[in-house]
Amino acid sequence: MTLDAEVDALRRVPLFRGIDATKLRLLAFISDRTHFAPGEELCRQGEDGDSAFIILEGEADIRVHTPDGEKTVARLGQHSIVGEIAILCDVPRTATVVAATEMDVLTVSKDDFLRLLKEFPDMSLEVMRTLAQRLERTTQDLAAQKASGAAA
Amino acid sequence: MTLDAEVDALRRVPLFRGIDATKLRLLAFISDRTHFAPGEELCRQGEDGDSAFIILEGEADIRVHTPDGEKTVARLGQHSIVGEIAILCDVPRTATVVAATEMDVLTVSKDDFLRLLKEFPDMSLEVMRTLAQRLERTTQDLAAQKASGAAA
Repeated sequence: MTLDAEVDALRRVPLFRGIDATKLRLLAFISDRTHFAPGEELCRQGEDGDSAFIILEGEADIRVHTPDGEKTVARLGQHSIVGEIAILCDVPRTATVVAATEMDVLTVSKDDFLRLLKEFPDMSLEVMRTLAQRLERTTQDLAAQKASGAAA
Repeated sequence: MTLDAEVDALRRVPLFRGIDATKLRLLAFISDRTHFAPGEELCRQGEDGDSAFIILEGEADIRVHTPDGEKTVARLGQHSIVGEIAILCDVPRTATVVAATEMDVLTVSKDDFLRLLKEFPDMSLEVMRTLAQRLERTTQDLAAQKASGAAA
């Protein structure tokens, strides 16, 4: 994929909506683009995390350890960001991310990611929105599980 | 409580760590401070939300609707922020927040809150960290519920 095509792809990611073309070109240039086949892991729970992933194509499952083995708790699609929690909170990876389909993924290093957030308030707001939406969905799922658990 | 004492209280809220005293004084001046007795509601799920709440004193339960009635899914303590999801995502309140103890709460309007976030990247990062930590905890709780549900 040419740099121009990559900038075009980045432009369609909601997270980067407020960032101008020159900066997107720089981001495309400094970031790694990786292909994952179904079943391959982007990262593993418990490992150190020094990058965030932006899904350019495909879908990924979010899996976490439980006393009962690993459970899938969510699926993320095209243009989602994942892996940002370890970067923001300075903690090991909080989940394992597994390619559910063929995937194209942009890997942004921790330093670049934090610098982008500081420089672009609109990008920060978009990350907050993404986290808030994900929290809201997970909270609803938890409530539903508690209700069905209580009914069982 | 005097304005000075209120600024002192705000200074102890991690969210406001990077904000200088002059701005904190302004924030204290433009924000409403409210007392809640145990059982009183700060906001109700489904209502329009036009403010965020910062817990200066006390604790609150986060409750959400389920097919089985309302369930408590989390408890938030002193210096936490709550109610920011409706503001960030432009959606109705995603949960009901109920005082679990006597509470002192600072109410920040949507406009003031978004302005603060744009102006102070450190505050944005802190909001992201808070959301990420809360998402991480909720995801773990969901996985544990799924495991215990499967075991039942």
